[in-house]
Amino acid sequence: MDKKISEKVISRLTLYHCILREFITKEHEYISSKQIATLLRIDDSQVRKDLNLLNNSGKTRVGYNVKELKTTIEKTLGYSKTKHTCIIGAGNLGMALAKYDNFTSYGLNVVAMFDNDTNKIGNKINDKEILDIKNLSNFVSHNEIDIAILTVPSKFAQETSELIVNSGIKYIWNFTSRVLKVPEDVQVWNENLMGNFLQFTYNI
Amino acid sequence: MDKKISEKVISRLTLYHCILREFITKEHEYISSKQIATLLRIDDSQVRKDLNLLNNSGKTRVGYNVKELKTTIEKTLGYSKTKHTCIIGAGNLGMALAKYDNFTSYGLNVVAMFDNDTNKIGNKINDKEILDIKNLSNFVSHNEIDIAILTVPSKFAQETSELIVNSGIKYIWNFTSRVLKVPEDVQVWNENLMGNFLQFTYNI
Repeated sequence: MDKKISEKVISRLTLYHCILREFITKEHEYISSKQIATLLRIDDSQVRKDLNLLNNSGKTRVGYNVKELKTTIEKTLGYSKTKHTCIIGAGNLGMALAKYDNFTSYGLNVVAMFDNDTNKIGNKINDKEILDIKNLSNFVSHNEIDIAILTVPSKFAQETSELIVNSGIKYIWNFTSRVLKVPEDVQVWNENLMGNFLQFTYNI
Repeated sequence: MDKKISEKVISRLTLYHCILREFITKEHEYISSKQIATLLRIDDSQVRKDLNLLNNSGKTRVGYNVKELKTTIEKTLGYSKTKHTCIIGAGNLGMALAKYDNFTSYGLNVVAMFDNDTNKIGNKINDKEILDIKNLSNFVSHNEIDIAILTVPSKFAQETSELIVNSGIKYIWNFTSRVLKVPEDVQVWNENLMGNFLQFTYNI
């Protein structure tokens, strides 16, 4: 399989995956590219083109085998290689993400949460303990943590990102509205909610 | 100004806007394309190309005037035309979005929240009252609501989207992991968190 899958294709494959999970819940055995395309209001040919990128053997006369296609997408996007993460900031957004049922099925394992609020430290959200942010470095040195999910209030974003960097974590998924200054070897993905929103509403 | 600004440019402009807001907080008067480019780790020429799309008069020898550039981006992306929204689902994610300080500055006005939990109905989050979902249609017929932000648990996503559609709202910003079936004249933007995440982590 060609490993060079574009960002747009990755994004669509995860949407196909959502649809497949629903079809499995409903005990449908087969799905056609046309059904996927209709739900997402995209071109049937686009769906077929995307699915042709996969090593998928489950295509039959009546459509794709739902379970096989789901597994193929998971393999292609590397869900099977689990990544370990901490959520930094146990506010509403951090808690929402800790409860997000989808993370695990996409190979993202939330190991713990961190906060500086003594009222929160020690509590558990969806079985993930809230630990003291002071102990982040120590925790990271004893646990495999690939990614930090940053959900603190924006005004604390930069200083908290420095704690993350000092702990040795190399990837930050940034949900704050602050653009972070980090060293060259640290990568930041800005979850730019407003950018997404404006793409949607630009023509309203 | 050419109204055909691509999605990628819109997304970058909102990130430039975040940086400009921070520069204003720090009372910096000018900013160079190089400074923006360094913070976002993109090409200087890309920033200049994007900013050339704007009707911006604030370019000087020492860089762009921060306040003027901020205003120009706001005008270009239409923040000045306020859009009114309801958050449907007062769980952690709904509450996080209700508290999100950025929405207002991007012309998104959260008018109210809706939930079916009698323990929540009547409470206020960041001055937005939580109303009974049963009253959604009635509320929408008496208030201008352009967009519904859907943050209910995924298993209730489809039935709740039907309430939204019946109320007459034509745009749904969908934060659930369910792909919604809606009539032709209703538009859905899937906030595909897992898709975004996988784009980021694909090469980790």
